Amino acid sequence: MKTDINQALAIIKRGAEELLIEQELIEKLKRGTPLRVKAGFDPTAPDLHLGHTVLINKLRHFQDLGHHVLFLIGDFTGMIGDPTGKSTTRPPLTKDQVAENAKSYASQVFKILDKDKTEIVFNSTWLNELGAAGMLKLAASHTVARMLERDDFTKRFKANQPIAIHEFMYPLLQGHDSVVLKADVELGGTDQKFNLLMGRELQKQAGQAQQCVLTMPLLEGLDGVHKMSKSLNNYIGINEPPEIIFAKLMSVSDELMWRYIELLSFEPLEAIAQWKAAVAAGENPRNIKVRFAQEIVARFHSQQDAEKALNDFQTRAKGGIPDDVPEVPVDIGSQSIGIAQLLKMAGLVDSTSEAYRAIEQGGVKLDSEKVSDRNLQLNKGATFVAQVGKRKFAKITIL
Amino acid sequence: MKTDINQALAIIKRGAEELLIEQELIEKLKRGTPLRVKAGFDPTAPDLHLGHTVLINKLRHFQDLGHHVLFLIGDFTGMIGDPTGKSTTRPPLTKDQVAENAKSYASQVFKILDKDKTEIVFNSTWLNELGAAGMLKLAASHTVARMLERDDFTKRFKANQPIAIHEFMYPLLQGHDSVVLKADVELGGTDQKFNLLMGRELQKQAGQAQQCVLTMPLLEGLDGVHKMSKSLNNYIGINEPPEIIFAKLMSVSDELMWRYIELLSFEPLEAIAQWKAAVAAGENPRNIKVRFAQEIVARFHSQQDAEKALNDFQTRAKGGIPDDVPEVPVDIGSQSIGIAQLLKMAGLVDSTSEAYRAIEQGGVKLDSEKVSDRNLQLNKGATFVAQVGKRKFAKITIL
Repeated sequence: MKTDINQALAIIKRGAEELLIEQELIEKLKRGTPLRVKAGFDPTAPDLHLGHTVLINKLRHFQDLGHHVLFLIGDFTGMIGDPTGKSTTRPPLTKDQVAENAKSYASQVFKILDKDKTEIVFNSTWLNELGAAGMLKLAASHTVARMLERDDFTKRFKANQPIAIHEFMYPLLQGHDSVVLKADVELGGTDQKFNLLMGRELQKQAGQAQQCVLTMPLLEGLDGVHKMSKSLNNYIGINEPPEIIFAKLMSVSDELMWRYIELLSFEPLEAIAQWKAAVAAGENPRNIKVRFAQEIVARFHSQQDAEKALNDFQTRAKGGIPDDVPEVPVDIGSQSIGIAQLLKMAGLVDSTSEAYRAIEQGGVKLDSEKVSDRNLQLNKGATFVAQVGKRKFAKITIL
Repeated sequence: MKTDINQALAIIKRGAEELLIEQELIEKLKRGTPLRVKAGFDPTAPDLHLGHTVLINKLRHFQDLGHHVLFLIGDFTGMIGDPTGKSTTRPPLTKDQVAENAKSYASQVFKILDKDKTEIVFNSTWLNELGAAGMLKLAASHTVARMLERDDFTKRFKANQPIAIHEFMYPLLQGHDSVVLKADVELGGTDQKFNLLMGRELQKQAGQAQQCVLTMPLLEGLDGVHKMSKSLNNYIGINEPPEIIFAKLMSVSDELMWRYIELLSFEPLEAIAQWKAAVAAGENPRNIKVRFAQEIVARFHSQQDAEKALNDFQTRAKGGIPDDVPEVPVDIGSQSIGIAQLLKMAGLVDSTSEAYRAIEQGGVKLDSEKVSDRNLQLNKGATFVAQVGKRKFAKITIL
């Protein structure tokens, strides 16, 4: 347990949007005992990307400072599904599905979190027990006007967009979770601030010490504009292959790189300050990017993978063929085959039309020779390295 | 079971404020099977007055037409108490208290209702079972904007008066009761219309036939202005002694009398029309009032009590002493006592100052002789009938 409060505070505040209330957190840290640090997660099948890890990293910082993480899976509402009954895409989750999703979470988040300092909890445990009466009491604790102060509710109400009554219950349930868990700190995205503060209010009503609230910014996606999300295809999944993570990180703008480093790197602030100084003095920011990309690949794969990803990236950048091209025997069932069909059978393109497009754009090479004839025929027994675009390679043998 | 729909409809609509939707009720009546007629009552200790009986009478009309009454005691919220925790005057009721209150209801309402056609139900039975999840689903069925359409909510919201979120749940719970009970008709005061219609909506969502809604007007108290209520002391309690009920009814204005007759008498509409014609032709409305007062006393006591109440009333009106003056021995512990103190000890006044006031106003008589000396001393051994005001008598013996 680190005892230097100022140092701890600096680590906690790094990259964070807002800390409420700092003086209270200082008092809590002074106790010298592990704090209960809560963060809530969706119960649906997780497929985490770097955007999600901003918050998880912060949990890890708390763990590094000796604190206890309550990783809350919000399965209570997940097991209800869409209570309006309008969405068929949100069917209720079964207990088994929740357990499976929790396992999937664990396999991903323990690449960042310390298992020994993490407790995975499910809010259905206590929220089901709350009963109809408890629900009513909870609803009695706040007014309609107070709830309409939440930014998105205000907007929807003013725009005459429907707000279903149960939506008013969610912040209260989240707050009640904090009461049950006796949380000292709760983390969430900036869009969660209202709900996080609800925990403080309900804890106060319950006669508990109030949790501190730490909001983390939303990470921009690869485009540097929108929030990172799978649906916008501007994401880096933590389960993506090393070379993909590496290449995607190398593709971000220099400006976005610093943002990513602030929110995703575990390097000390002093080191980052030095990098900035070096770039300001003329160093190529690409060198920093390489270093950072290796850190991230190493986190989700291994140091070895990180080094290999760098080598491959450099080889490809020089137009070379990387070391680990997969061997792909293709049984064509005849004497010869057209290039487009072959690329499809080898899994390098999804369709022959994609292959034709790639050839037209000069993106297809056989043994590093650009293919220009879209009707090129290849014979049984041939072996060569085929390349589509910058990153897809296969050592094909035609059977 | 009466089968003349028009006749049934006339009985149902008598005195009612609004029937929604008449055509649907006609269709239900045409089925020829008993309808399930629901009305909800407070779970707190009941002390029913004539105002309450307007609705109970209407339930009785349904029973006379062959229908089945669901007398719902809303104990679910009563067993929660005041969920805001602010009111110490609304502590949660225990199961025993609810059972006791239900018994007290039964002893009162079965003076009007037909036991064989009445089912007393408690909504805690199914609302506790609803659970936190069911509560959330119920809350999801309606929007905040829709709920704010309720008249009193609109007013409070516009006036920035707080509305606690659980208040939005009550109409939904009441509606859910109708779903569970499969109610064909629900009765309530005019102030209940929104909640009653909620039952229709939730039944529709549940794929059930929608209940009809019958609202009954609020009965004015003896002042003819405000709603009858115990706290305004303008009420006639159904458990009050026969002579009190009789005298209070005789005290109402001629105009209010017709209103009471419309809402409280069980006499056929034709008879009432004849009375009105008679009064218009010069008959003293007092005669109608006597007849009506006797009907009400007979309903809550007996025909005999009704006749006695009339006799006593007439005796008193003539300044005489009624037959049944209670004997009150008063042990003064000395040789003599002042009149004011004696009246207080006999329970005829609450304080000596009330006694002095009554003497000054000429309202105190001993053996029908007006007392004018406020310091009159009375000796041990004396026996006489003391009277304060028009209705309070006691045969006092000084011991």
